[in-house]
Amino acid sequence: MRLYTRTGDKGDTSIIGGRVGKDDVRVEAYGTVDELNCVVGMAVTELDPAKFEDILSDLETIQHELFDCGGDLATINGKRGFKLQQESIDEMEAKIDAYIQEAPELERFILPGGSKGSAHIHLARTVARRAERLVVALIRTGEDVHPVTLKYLNRLSDYFFAIARVINFREGVKDVEYVRSANVFRGGKRKEDQQ
Amino acid sequence: MRLYTRTGDKGDTSIIGGRVGKDDVRVEAYGTVDELNCVVGMAVTELDPAKFEDILSDLETIQHELFDCGGDLATINGKRGFKLQQESIDEMEAKIDAYIQEAPELERFILPGGSKGSAHIHLARTVARRAERLVVALIRTGEDVHPVTLKYLNRLSDYFFAIARVINFREGVKDVEYVRSANVFRGGKRKEDQQ
Amino acid sequence: MRLYTRTGDKGDTSIIGGRVGKDDVRVEAYGTVDELNCVVGMAVTELDPAKFEDILSDLETIQHELFDCGGDLATINGKRGFKLQQESIDEMEAKIDAYIQEAPELERFILPGGSKGSAHIHLARTVARRAERLVVALIRTGEDVHPVTLKYLNRLSDYFFAIARVINFREGVKDVEYVRSANVFRGGKRKEDQQ
Ligand code: B12
Ligand code: B12
Ligand code: B12
Ligand SMILES: C[C@H]1O[C@@H](n2cnc3c(N)ncnc32)[C@H](O)[C@@H]1O
Ligand SMILES: C[C@H]1O[C@@H](n2cnc3c(N)ncnc32)[C@H](O)[C@@H]1O
Ligand SMILES: C[C@H]1O[C@@H](n2cnc3c(N)ncnc32)[C@H](O)[C@@H]1O
Ligand SMILES: [Mg+2]
Ligand SMILES: [Mg+2]
Ligand SMILES: [Mg+2]
Repeated sequence: MRLYTRTGDKGDTSIIGGRVGKDDVRVEAYGTVDELNCVVGMAVTELDPAKFEDILSDLETIQHELFDCGGDLATINGKRGFKLQQESIDEMEAKIDAYIQEAPELERFILPGGSKGSAHIHLARTVARRAERLVVALIRTGEDVHPVTLKYLNRLSDYFFAIARVINFREGVKDVEYVRSANVFRGGKRKEDQQ
Repeated sequence: MRLYTRTGDKGDTSIIGGRVGKDDVRVEAYGTVDELNCVVGMAVTELDPAKFEDILSDLETIQHELFDCGGDLATINGKRGFKLQQESIDEMEAKIDAYIQEAPELERFILPGGSKGSAHIHLARTVARRAERLVVALIRTGEDVHPVTLKYLNRLSDYFFAIARVINFREGVKDVEYVRSANVFRGGKRKEDQQ
Repeated sequence: MRLYTRTGDKGDTSIIGGRVGKDDVRVEAYGTVDELNCVVGMAVTELDPAKFEDILSDLETIQHELFDCGGDLATINGKRGFKLQQESIDEMEAKIDAYIQEAPELERFILPGGSKGSAHIHLARTVARRAERLVVALIRTGEDVHPVTLKYLNRLSDYFFAIARVINFREGVKDVEYVRSANVFRGGKRKEDQQ
């Protein structure tokens, strides 16, 4: 097999359903999803399978979902159905709620870092947010985007925040609070939690 | 606590003093400062506390300052004062001058890399420069930006360059010069050094 | 020597042959090539010299070429000749063809990751593609760009894909296929391979 086709040497490229410039915000978006997928792949190599069986299983699911997400973003002209499903988001929300229970309660921002695994996941958190910003930019241009994409990436960064905390907790590493932080984590408090 | 609020699922988000699109260059800018903070957090995990007590202490200060910087960038309508101070830059310049003395004199560009710690710091150097470019883009749109922000990020990338060299030096790793480099490091020579 | 010159504190900067804003897409482009060079430097630290002598030698060549590439992008007004040569691409193509033979044949997309070295190279792959997108954007603005630049970055990401697979193969790590992938790798099949 020959890997390279040289067809993209002039700056345009094929997507599913057409051909666009490589600087198209659509290509920017799924290219960044691909980059995010790589950061997740790096994080995986830093997590001890004995301590993080659950999280490693989540991360593999997420790597497949990021391909779904990238494939959806690479599709135009409604040629095919979309792959990413709302169920993935529902499951992710349930996981966030559970992981948030495991690590100590939090009121203030924390410095990204601690254990190697957690540091990598924090990076994934911010790259997911970079991808999210590009999807918003793509929607703004009036282009058709599968509606689940944006919600998925938004939730994904919160999922990464939740597990970054769990990883440090299981590793016995205390998160360091940002010294000049206000008590920012409260807007999300459910009515029933506040009593 | 519930972490996710779902309020950003439509593509806009709250900042300090208002609400903007997530693809706003302001969000791009502080989102990249957050990403930079994560790269610093990763670098920290690669530095031996026995050899790098001074640098690790600097990096923790910088992580807090990057939150100040991000908070300043996330503030509009002059609602509040800014957090980052010129003193942080003055202190950083003094540190750069000292670290530059420690590693061997340099005339030519060097390949980013060597020890793991140094390689990570070089990455931080370039992500700081990416954040700097976004702050310049934000200023260009006519938006109000705390003047210290830009100088801080500019100096920060030079600080990273200085410590990347010190880290390799203390680790006994020689920096590799770019083979086709001119003697580029000379503009910064102080009059009194030239005699 | 004083490292910082403070000349860029207002948001513009010197390039070879003039002065531009730091948010200029040209600066974006070579700044990203610099970032890519750092990711390559990080990957190098994850590769065992005993197993990867060939690849490590390639990567050092590439780090020098990325400086050539960055220098070419930082040059305007045709003041000087360009550094990067078509020969670098020819040699890279030969290497891709050889490495592709070494790892098991592939029909479907694979999850980026596996061994640490491979995970890092996958990240380099996507950052090379980010740099490529910026060069396309730069060309689109009508600016003069050395024609070899774009082809080089395009081929470089394919080279990274090829060695990411070889690294996992030599490490005894199986690449995981994307579960919902079509048989995407076939367009590149040479006529003579198809019989
Ligand atoms: C800026 C910002 C960021 C910046 C961080 C700031 C920085 N310095 O760089 C960045 C981009 C890094 C960020 C990241 C995250 N953020 Co944020 N962030 C904000 C934002 C917009 C402002 C927070 C802030 O600094 N406020 C400044 C302070 C000074 O204002 P204040 O909180 O209103 O406090 C004043 C008063 O209210 C009062 N006050 C404050 N606390 C208290 C307490 C008491 C008892 C009293 C009397 C008064 C008082 O005093 C303060 C001074 O005037 C808020 C949303 C918002 N508009 O508030 C979200 C917000 C705090 N973030 C949120 C989240 C989820 C995150 C992330 C987890 C997202 C992610 N997935 O990555 C991460 C966590 C990062 C980390 N490492 O911890 C959520 C929290 C939701 C929740 N469950 O509470 C918020 C509320 C946004 C939202 N609606 O979803 N964030
Ligand atoms: C392009 C560039 C970069 C590119 C690198 C180039 C690339 N190939 O990708 C990137 C973006 C990566 C970069 C990074 C950095 N750079 Co830079 N870079 C430049 C720039 C714009 C051009 C340098 C260059 O390649 N010139 C091309 C050569 C051919 O031109 P030349 O130097 O003028 O040399 C010619 C003649 O002068 C003569 N000549 C050269 N040397 C000598 C010596 C003698 C004795 C004689 C007779 C003649 C002679 O021959 C040459 C051939 O014509 C200069 C600023 C400038 N305008 O010069 C800054 C500059 C060299 N960079 C600088 C800095 C600080 C950095 C960073 C540390 C920034 C950071 N914090 O990350 C890093 C270091 C990176 C590293 N790994 O080493 C500073 C150095 C300041 C100082 N103290 O000297 C400069 C001067 C910019 C500035 N004013 O601040 N940089
Ligand atoms: C989208 C895309 C990506 C996305 C991945 C998708 C995602 N989900 O995020 C990203 C950006 C990540 C990507 C990356 C890469 N990609 Co890509 N990608 C594509 C693209 C545009 C679409 C692929 C796709 O998903 N098609 C969707 C499927 C459903 O469509 P289909 O393949 O046409 O299949 C349909 C039918 O043909 C049929 N069918 C498919 N297979 C078969 C088999 C049989 C026997 C039959 C009967 C029918 C059948 O059923 C399908 C359902 O309708 C193709 C180009 C193209 N236009 O096809 C390149 C392409 C597959 N990519 C290519 C390459 C080289 C890569 C990279 C190596 C590039 C790099 N250097 O990084 C990486 C590899 C990544 C990895 N980890 O494996 C090359 C492969 C060249 C080759 N030698 O075959 C292609 C062909 C582009 C090109 N012309 O160069 N890619
Ligand atoms: C926690 C805070 O982060 C900001 N925010 C929300 N989404 C993104 C994103 N994709 N990238 C960067 N910042 C974001 C908002 O200001 C939010 O309130
Ligand atoms: C060392 C060289 O790097 C370039 N330069 C200065 N600031 C940045 C930045 N934020 N990002 C990328 N490149 C930059 C200029 O061309 C300078 O001369
Ligand atoms: C494999 C697929 O990746 C996409 N593609 C090609 N070049 C780039 C790039 N620089 N960045 C992101 N995606 C790219 C095209 O859609 C191609 O078909
Ligand atoms: Mg969010
Ligand atoms: Mg600078
Ligand atoms: Mg390509």
